[in-house]
Amino acid sequence: MPKLPQKLYGPNNTMSNLTNEEREKGLTFLPKFDDKGLLSAVVTHYETGAVLMVAFMDAEALTATQASGLAHFHSRSRGKLWQKGESSGHVLKVQEILVDCDQDAIVLRCLPDGPTCHTGAASCFYRVLDGGSLQPSRLDPYVKGM
Amino acid sequence: MPKLPQKLYGPNNTMSNLTNEEREKGLTFLPKFDDKGLLSAVVTHYETGAVLMVAFMDAEALTATQASGLAHFHSRSRGKLWQKGESSGHVLKVQEILVDCDQDAIVLRCLPDGPTCHTGAASCFYRVLDGGSLQPSRLDPYVKGM
Repeated sequence: MPKLPQKLYGPNNTMSNLTNEEREKGLTFLPKFDDKGLLSAVVTHYETGAVLMVAFMDAEALTATQASGLAHFHSRSRGKLWQKGESSGHVLKVQEILVDCDQDAIVLRCLPDGPTCHTGAASCFYRVLDGGSLQPSRLDPYVKGM
Repeated sequence: MPKLPQKLYGPNNTMSNLTNEEREKGLTFLPKFDDKGLLSAVVTHYETGAVLMVAFMDAEALTATQASGLAHFHSRSRGKLWQKGESSGHVLKVQEILVDCDQDAIVLRCLPDGPTCHTGAASCFYRVLDGGSLQPSRLDPYVKGM
């Protein structure tokens, strides 16, 4: 994917006062970062549609993702850019990016190279909430095909 | 779903210093709220798996969701609880809640009663990023079946 100029969607871009209608109906990518310069990023499996992980991206992570085709995020705890799989090798190959109505969240449709979760699970969402406790998820897409 | 005592997962709960291992491998639901008392919530269609919307929940929204079986969120812009569909009637009936490894994100698997997006689209993710511009998504699950 081609790299976009940072000014197009940096947190301090001059287009932050767009009307809702422009953001919702327009064909220009104008991501709406929050007060920390972040937007929500959901990773789904390109083939099964399963949700694999959820993280945050800033303008830098978005640029790096588009430039490399591999998912990058912003670590809130470490305060810096990280590429998924940079140490494990379990990268996420981005096939398509979906953008939501007000452009403050995106979906990265990816082909994962190995398990996505650092625990070794195919998806980070390996447990289901059952009342007040957690149980292993029996959801097929989260067990196989990834 | 039964209502859980607020103290179990309020942002000021006394279990916030749990080890990563306890959060990742345990069977106790101990959501990890961020410094604003929020966690990420992804809504997917229970039958198709399509991502319908992404929002944030605080302890209050989580309690309201579990008590009612209808998705509630915390509006960051308005600073208050909102029930999806409270004005439109397009509620999200929660069928299952998935929790991620470090318990700072959840997936609400829902049956939507009407379009999820306030624009009238079935999913908020109705556009795909193509270079620097947006195009209507041709992804089947986002067009039909919802």
